[in-house]
Amino acid sequence: MTRHPSALPALSRRAERVAPFLAMDVLAAATAKERRGDHVVHMEVGQPSAPAPRAAREAAKAALDLGRIGYTEALGIAPLRERIARHYAETYGVAVAPERIVVTTGSSAGFVLGFLSLFDAGARVAITAPGYPAYRNILEALDIEAVALPLERATGYVMTAAAVERAHAERPLSGILAMSPANPSGTMIGAAALADLGGACRRLGLWFVSDEIYHGLTYGEPARTALSVDDDAVIVNSFSKYFCMTGWRVGWLVVPERLTRAVERLAQNLYISAPYLSQVAALAAFEAREELEAVKEGYAANRALLLDAFPSLGLGDTHPVDGAFYIYADVARFTNDSIAFCRRMLAEAGVAATPGVDFDAAEGAHHVRFSFAGSHDDCREAVRRLRAWLPAV
Amino acid sequence: MTRHPSALPALSRRAERVAPFLAMDVLAAATAKERRGDHVVHMEVGQPSAPAPRAAREAAKAALDLGRIGYTEALGIAPLRERIARHYAETYGVAVAPERIVVTTGSSAGFVLGFLSLFDAGARVAITAPGYPAYRNILEALDIEAVALPLERATGYVMTAAAVERAHAERPLSGILAMSPANPSGTMIGAAALADLGGACRRLGLWFVSDEIYHGLTYGEPARTALSVDDDAVIVNSFSKYFCMTGWRVGWLVVPERLTRAVERLAQNLYISAPYLSQVAALAAFEAREELEAVKEGYAANRALLLDAFPSLGLGDTHPVDGAFYIYADVARFTNDSIAFCRRMLAEAGVAATPGVDFDAAEGAHHVRFSFAGSHDDCREAVRRLRAWLPAV
Repeated sequence: MTRHPSALPALSRRAERVAPFLAMDVLAAATAKERRGDHVVHMEVGQPSAPAPRAAREAAKAALDLGRIGYTEALGIAPLRERIARHYAETYGVAVAPERIVVTTGSSAGFVLGFLSLFDAGARVAITAPGYPAYRNILEALDIEAVALPLERATGYVMTAAAVERAHAERPLSGILAMSPANPSGTMIGAAALADLGGACRRLGLWFVSDEIYHGLTYGEPARTALSVDDDAVIVNSFSKYFCMTGWRVGWLVVPERLTRAVERLAQNLYISAPYLSQVAALAAFEAREELEAVKEGYAANRALLLDAFPSLGLGDTHPVDGAFYIYADVARFTNDSIAFCRRMLAEAGVAATPGVDFDAAEGAHHVRFSFAGSHDDCREAVRRLRAWLPAV
Repeated sequence: MTRHPSALPALSRRAERVAPFLAMDVLAAATAKERRGDHVVHMEVGQPSAPAPRAAREAAKAALDLGRIGYTEALGIAPLRERIARHYAETYGVAVAPERIVVTTGSSAGFVLGFLSLFDAGARVAITAPGYPAYRNILEALDIEAVALPLERATGYVMTAAAVERAHAERPLSGILAMSPANPSGTMIGAAALADLGGACRRLGLWFVSDEIYHGLTYGEPARTALSVDDDAVIVNSFSKYFCMTGWRVGWLVVPERLTRAVERLAQNLYISAPYLSQVAALAAFEAREELEAVKEGYAANRALLLDAFPSLGLGDTHPVDGAFYIYADVARFTNDSIAFCRRMLAEAGVAATPGVDFDAAEGAHHVRFSFAGSHDDCREAVRRLRAWLPAV
């Protein structure tokens, strides 16, 4: 029954070139440390420590009592699609028909459906460095080339129209994938820069894919949707961050109307539908605004505490944290090997954070991402431990 | 903000070539008919009418009370991986280490992860005609060629080693995708034929992907896992069918140990993790054997009723229904356009079933798939309606 080793078929090349998600590996190491009885402050994963809103959990329980938890339409249950469409009118003043909403199994499924419906193998798509590592990894698994545009201090560490145009001139792009507020940097694309990006996409004939998963989590100006500058933009969003519903795996896409049927066919085949209970709970989560705003106030307090303390720890050179719940700190004065640095920080200080190389192969070697989605006590304890552990500056 | 039409980027070719899942379109038409006040007997979707086991629903409710519904390890929660591994020892007498189990977001995610980790763009994979339409559609979305092997009465309507060898001789294959019990035919691969398939895969250096989603739902001999003939087989399974948990979107893969890390990296990036509540509920579902066996007895009664009545309706020429919950009936004496036939049957008789072209572009024109996963009363009513509607034979 067991094969002779030489007869074993090979893994696919695309599987071999996909990089691991180091944040998940740090999580595994941190959990192992805890099992040995040590206490760890978790700042490695982008996951709210607050539970899902009570209304969402109650809705799921009511659905469990009814018992029928079946497949839904591939595009999602109608009331949720309608509620999400209304969210665009209420939040951004942008009219979106419910037919353009696709309920997805988290933003992860949104990326796969979006990329597959827009890009063929060999297409080139601009992303940023640093950026969310799954972008590159999903694109590459689907044989699409991820073209990383390095972010620059002078332009506020966001993707710019000028950089997109330069990359397109080198070799034509098929689309861009922008994120605001961004992971890991927390930076946001301002109104003018967003309009410029939309203009560049229209001029060059590029798809504008906009990851808006951190919308709602901003500490100054509210975030703008790419739909306000490009009606054809493909929006990826999720209930995981602002709505505190990570493990439910539910998110959404907004797509141009002519894309809906193609996305539906792909969704029918690749996902059948998003989880039913999660769709029901997500619908209820829209009514939990007060609870969710309180959670956000907690992030704001965490952010203030860390931004105040970090410079005195030698972690002052951070990207501007306008949104999301991360601080992307330059640790060049301590190390040029962020993986080893994070490993030692976990082992010796009991603080788990994610090495920058997860987000940027080059500059990430001297950056570390700290998530402040945990409790305020955790943030305070992290500062205490880091002050004791880091060499004085 | 709105683009000039000529400037609109095109959809991807891969999105355009993916076919719709007609069963879902029939479901939509049937639901529309019900909204107009008509009664419909649903035999179009492969979905148990029984709710998820009580133990599963209770486990989900308990988890909701605890409140913490976060991401899990990408490969799934440890107790579920261990329980699934034990299932292989108990059910098949096959030893499988928990490290080889990957908890997936339904079998849909299992296929995507399996195909991506085994096959590169341009690879050829043998499937059957008729067969589950998502096979071809997922493979094609990932730029993998689906090579359909027509099933033949003489060999019991299952994939054979001889057919695989012929296809491989024509142009090399990279793997096969077999299913037993099969959708839509209900046919099963016997012990000898399975051993032959395993032998062919070893001899030719092909990956053996085995869809075992209908295991547990058999009406004579129990189903055999491909692991019993090929330790390197990649097994796709799910809690949707035997365990009655469709809308929960949870399933699993068994992979060779050397594949685990590649699948983990892909899962981290493409899915992050399967839904947490569904994983907790799936673990509890293993303890609901009695409830689930009662559901299966219901299918057996439905099957007996339909197999008894169908010949007298002129629907006698069915594939042998050894497992699953479908009857794949030849309707050649009534039509050679199964889509039009199913549309009329829904409109005039109020019976929803799926046109065979969903499963087989050629022979499917004169086949229809009837699901008997509904209630016994529904099956009885379907026979009554069909007897009144079909021309007497």
